Amino acid sequence: MREILEKIVASIPGSAAVLMGFDGIAIDQAASPEAAADVESIAMEFSFRFMELRKAAESLDMGELQDVVVKAARGSLIVRCLNEEFFVALYLDQPMHLGKGRWLLRSSGDGLRAQL
Amino acid sequence: MREILEKIVASIPGSAAVLMGFDGIAIDQAASPEAAADVESIAMEFSFRFMELRKAAESLDMGELQDVVVKAARGSLIVRCLNEEFFVALYLDQPMHLGKGRWLLRSSGDGLRAQL
Repeated sequence: MREILEKIVASIPGSAAVLMGFDGIAIDQAASPEAAADVESIAMEFSFRFMELRKAAESLDMGELQDVVVKAARGSLIVRCLNEEFFVALYLDQPMHLGKGRWLLRSSGDGLRAQL
Repeated sequence: MREILEKIVASIPGSAAVLMGFDGIAIDQAASPEAAADVESIAMEFSFRFMELRKAAESLDMGELQDVVVKAARGSLIVRCLNEEFFVALYLDQPMHLGKGRWLLRSSGDGLRAQL
């Protein structure tokens, strides 16, 4: 699990990844050496809001929530839902890596899900 | 304003766009002929949650919220914040158009902002 997270952050300078429950409790995390942000605090702060987005998507007949991207001026958070209980989140300080980040989370999803 | 929204939805089959306040009140909207979803209801339902995401991003020192993407199994919503009060949202029924949609919203942002 840690190994998968480390592989993700090794590919993107200034990134940090966390595997977390929608209750805001982290299971494991990894950060690239240049990462300044505390991804655990950030994902914890957003976890409740993501649950709200999930409920809204389901009530609007959009189906199960898969990805959320929150892009702000000084940092971005990419989230991929793994199942009803857990998600993996990647924090980036550079918006230019958003596409790569989404792709890395997507391609790591099965590997992480298999270990939950 | 309507013209800009119509240009966006004309480029993506099955899409619908709305210009809305964070209070959930729509200013204007447009939908491609194939669009099945009611983008006004969807954006209204999410508007309060986006305001929550905006507050969270600011409190976490991520800076001003710029974009949010919510991708679910049967539909995706892309949001671009225009200023403190308003956002433009694009609903897509096909995830393959997400990149194009984000780009269209970004390139239309200035034009829409100028009319607010």
